[in-house]
Amino acid sequence: MSLSEFNLIERYFTARGVRREDVALGVGDDCALLRVPAGMELAVSIDALVEGHHYPAGTDAAAVGHKALAVGLSDLAAMGAEPAWATLALSLPEADEGWLQGFADGLFALADRFRVQLVGGDTVRGPRVISLQLHGFVPQGMALRRDGATVGDLIYVTGTPGDAGLGLELALGRYSASDADARYLRERLDRPEPRVMVGLQLRGIASAAIDISDGLAADLGHILARSGVGARLELAQLPYSSALQRLLPDALERWHYALGSGDDYELCFTVPPERCAAVEQLCAALDCGCQCIGRIEAAPGLRLYRPDGTLLENSPHGFDHFG
Amino acid sequence: MSLSEFNLIERYFTARGVRREDVALGVGDDCALLRVPAGMELAVSIDALVEGHHYPAGTDAAAVGHKALAVGLSDLAAMGAEPAWATLALSLPEADEGWLQGFADGLFALADRFRVQLVGGDTVRGPRVISLQLHGFVPQGMALRRDGATVGDLIYVTGTPGDAGLGLELALGRYSASDADARYLRERLDRPEPRVMVGLQLRGIASAAIDISDGLAADLGHILARSGVGARLELAQLPYSSALQRLLPDALERWHYALGSGDDYELCFTVPPERCAAVEQLCAALDCGCQCIGRIEAAPGLRLYRPDGTLLENSPHGFDHFG
Repeated sequence: MSLSEFNLIERYFTARGVRREDVALGVGDDCALLRVPAGMELAVSIDALVEGHHYPAGTDAAAVGHKALAVGLSDLAAMGAEPAWATLALSLPEADEGWLQGFADGLFALADRFRVQLVGGDTVRGPRVISLQLHGFVPQGMALRRDGATVGDLIYVTGTPGDAGLGLELALGRYSASDADARYLRERLDRPEPRVMVGLQLRGIASAAIDISDGLAADLGHILARSGVGARLELAQLPYSSALQRLLPDALERWHYALGSGDDYELCFTVPPERCAAVEQLCAALDCGCQCIGRIEAAPGLRLYRPDGTLLENSPHGFDHFG
Repeated sequence: MSLSEFNLIERYFTARGVRREDVALGVGDDCALLRVPAGMELAVSIDALVEGHHYPAGTDAAAVGHKALAVGLSDLAAMGAEPAWATLALSLPEADEGWLQGFADGLFALADRFRVQLVGGDTVRGPRVISLQLHGFVPQGMALRRDGATVGDLIYVTGTPGDAGLGLELALGRYSASDADARYLRERLDRPEPRVMVGLQLRGIASAAIDISDGLAADLGHILARSGVGARLELAQLPYSSALQRLLPDALERWHYALGSGDDYELCFTVPPERCAAVEQLCAALDCGCQCIGRIEAAPGLRLYRPDGTLLENSPHGFDHFG
């Protein structure tokens, strides 16, 4: 990185945010030096964000900064890992100070909430692409993985999936809504709330977990494939926001968004029946909506059942039906 | 990331390369799960590579794959850290299978040499930007940092700096050279050899170290600034490749490339006089060229001395003089 770029990242990203005791050396050398607590595994996730793909062109810079971090925090949440450190690689066409300030503001506001320290970075001149890596801790052998679902487990989802996808359609002008609904749905797209605390408390309770970035059906599909099982999903049980219900009076459309649209960053997880009370209790305590939507079965594939109990014919991933 | 992109990265990057015992879970879940050995600090470096900035347009995909990893390995080398894991965020305009195959080939050839496992990644559709993060281990408190240089320490550099910068000028058609020299210099630009083994052996010997990505003068300047010292550099001691000597008969031009051009990924480090014999011995044993080029002094700034012993008037970073 050139000297001027070095100064750039120093200026916006170095002297800010929490200072953690497990950081022996932060930004400013060839590497950061970090200490993983004894008995902990390091959970690591890297994501790249591209304008027009992960956020609409013209999105507020602070929202982009929030989302860049939220996506990684959501990956940690899905493993039951406690967030610790982030590194950032920023490719930017120009040193737009207003954008950088807003981006940094959005990023650090969320980082501070979860005690994440930015420990390294690289800023280069190029097309606008944001890569952010997150590091967290999970006690050895306690991580929530995708491959632990067992026949009979119940399937849960947090929040109201489909909101972010509908928010994107609104941003692109394909729907219109009341100001309040539009604001709510756009906020769900721009500022997803990573379910970090829920993920942490699901350790020892959930048998498998994933975060919903590709869409509920596709991501549940990853759990099923990795665990070598199938599932029955009750369409009547899908949880919706009131904004989504107002905008989409048609049930089929609601299913489409709840199952097929991405970017929600909610958690989907499976739980043995005897631990379901614990799940509902912990979600209530964390004020996080949480809904049982189906059950793991032996036969591979995801089967969607209508409210009247009949099977909706569907492709292996269910949601393709609507595509 | 979408399903098709998921398949893409799985196909080229998942089932390849070394399998390390400290990887509890690699590519394929929300996070990788990794185990840092007891007593070790984790060294982490992230770099973004952009076409036209870090490598000329049209560079062989395998060379890009090599370089993406080499840049991070060089950061680890500069800290004296042992390489372990990499993660990769790839933004690509299209799924060009030939390019991906070449990129992966170049990356894994180097990764296998240093026992680096690719443990996570993200592939998105967007402008071509490559972000790679490397993780390595260094015994607690043993890392080579930028801030440890002391008055009286001698300054060393490995290899022959300036080659990569001259290779870039050749690639851009600004010089012409014999086929053999052109090949050598282009190889130095495209396939830098990270000085990992040298860095590891410098632990406990060097007082400070950095890798030369911005240019020798600028990077030595980082050591001086961080350590709160200055330096005297003997221009007559700068080491050159024979190709560079053939192309640049003029001494001032040679100094310009050796001090001012980036992308060499050699190491610059400082050593207390009593340990210099050890340095020369270990570099000889590793078959790595290594040259003493100056000495740390108390007065801030970098002073360049001509072969005749007179001071070359210069800016704080020395090389700016030539800019």
